[in-house]
Amino acid sequence: MAFPSRVKIVEVGPRDGLQNEKQTVPTDVKIELIRRLGDAGLSVIESGAFVSPKWVPQMADTADVMAGIDRRAGVTYPVLVPNEKGVEGAIASGVDEIAVFAAASESFSRKNINCSIAESFERFAPVIAMAKAKNIRVRGYVSCVAGCPYEGAIAPQAVADVSAKLLDMGAYEISLGDTIGVGTPVVTATMLKAVMARVPVEKLALHCHNTYGQALANIYTGLEMGVAVFDSSVGGLGGCPYAKGASGNVATEDVLYMLNGMGIETGVDINAVVDTAWFISNHLGRKPDSKVANAMRPT
Amino acid sequence: MAFPSRVKIVEVGPRDGLQNEKQTVPTDVKIELIRRLGDAGLSVIESGAFVSPKWVPQMADTADVMAGIDRRAGVTYPVLVPNEKGVEGAIASGVDEIAVFAAASESFSRKNINCSIAESFERFAPVIAMAKAKNIRVRGYVSCVAGCPYEGAIAPQAVADVSAKLLDMGAYEISLGDTIGVGTPVVTATMLKAVMARVPVEKLALHCHNTYGQALANIYTGLEMGVAVFDSSVGGLGGCPYAKGASGNVATEDVLYMLNGMGIETGVDINAVVDTAWFISNHLGRKPDSKVANAMRPT
Repeated sequence: MAFPSRVKIVEVGPRDGLQNEKQTVPTDVKIELIRRLGDAGLSVIESGAFVSPKWVPQMADTADVMAGIDRRAGVTYPVLVPNEKGVEGAIASGVDEIAVFAAASESFSRKNINCSIAESFERFAPVIAMAKAKNIRVRGYVSCVAGCPYEGAIAPQAVADVSAKLLDMGAYEISLGDTIGVGTPVVTATMLKAVMARVPVEKLALHCHNTYGQALANIYTGLEMGVAVFDSSVGGLGGCPYAKGASGNVATEDVLYMLNGMGIETGVDINAVVDTAWFISNHLGRKPDSKVANAMRPT
Repeated sequence: MAFPSRVKIVEVGPRDGLQNEKQTVPTDVKIELIRRLGDAGLSVIESGAFVSPKWVPQMADTADVMAGIDRRAGVTYPVLVPNEKGVEGAIASGVDEIAVFAAASESFSRKNINCSIAESFERFAPVIAMAKAKNIRVRGYVSCVAGCPYEGAIAPQAVADVSAKLLDMGAYEISLGDTIGVGTPVVTATMLKAVMARVPVEKLALHCHNTYGQALANIYTGLEMGVAVFDSSVGGLGGCPYAKGASGNVATEDVLYMLNGMGIETGVDINAVVDTAWFISNHLGRKPDSKVANAMRPT
């Protein structure tokens, strides 16, 4: 088995994590969270979203967050944008990377972003053009790659089609999201194989949710197939809107524990991430939703 | 990749799980727990231990549990025994299988069972002979296969030596226990490779603890190498005495979710296991320590 010797962790806690927490976190706490994640060695920290505060009140202060953080050299702070208004906000905030969001499931696309998959690409075209004109990199998310809360199983070919389209439109990296955490290793491998026939593995990331505890097994499957970018969330921030009481994003520290044990480099200090998991979880009034943070405790 | 088409789950909740819970569970609840696990389709249910009640008060009622359960045809109810007195109790209770317990770490053996590894084998000899004389099968546990709380990393060769010795002494199956959950896929694969050079894979089981969230990734590694027997605990029963607040045994329902998703047969009904996880967790006054039981909820 030849695993990647180095893996890039895309920390999504301040955005995908906090967006799915009931409690809204104050701006200064978000800024401190992002600072600590940078100190821990994370090189990509998704920091907010320029979305309607009516729909996502947790992200209403993204402009303030972006204005308040110290941007480290070598660290990218992407923000999620759904439309032209969002990219305008991102440009005004001087972001270096945006992320756009497509679904591999037609039903999920309609329920989540209120348009068909084809229509979502029409929306992205001007967004991506505006970003490119400002030398802002674009990352593409594909949701429901292993299953959909409305449709059930999703054809690997549908995931490959959406991924290839995002690549064609100019995304530099495609993050394959198992939005409801239903993937298991064989499902993940089959999906990845279909996508890798269309998109080079160097441009792929896996974004696993740990709803059913399968995230690390799926990430391991990804590593075996050459994937070297994984999204995760410090302290397992973020729940699952489709299963009450369930977990959301896989915890960054749990992923790091596996990678460290496998001798794969990340440049990230697991102890600093565990400390940060407790920092933000204390603010939310609960323990981190991760095995490692509870077993290791703050240093 | 050729995975086993069928896997045997060895349910250890009523013993390894409850033994490591602070709260002692009443005998009638244990009997009901074991009944429910049998109803769910589990074919091996570790049901107690004939050990000193001074050291393990949680298992003091094993004779009553064994007297109270309805033994289903085709289901085995092993008990753990450390010595001749234990096997006498097991024989008096009419058990069909016992388990003996060795360590791959010299320090752990001394601290946990108060003798060297070599001395532990001297203790097992009469135990195994007594069991065999009554046609009672013997299963061998090896602890600390991926690491020891006192010594750190454990040489794969040490695990192989202890495993081969237990096989030679008459154990029909060797359960390789990652007692403190520190194993990651590469460590697990290296250890398994060393053991498989001495013990046929058909005679091996993996017993993973989920202290650092690595259990399913390690089980997946085992499946890739042909292991087809896995120990687990309903509701993730049992904590970790070496890391306060940490998880113990991997949850049976989390393992089942992965195996079901991979198309591997087990004969076990995941919904019935989830119901049972909530049944016993309610008795302990907490939620199950498993992702699946919290995401699926009782049917």
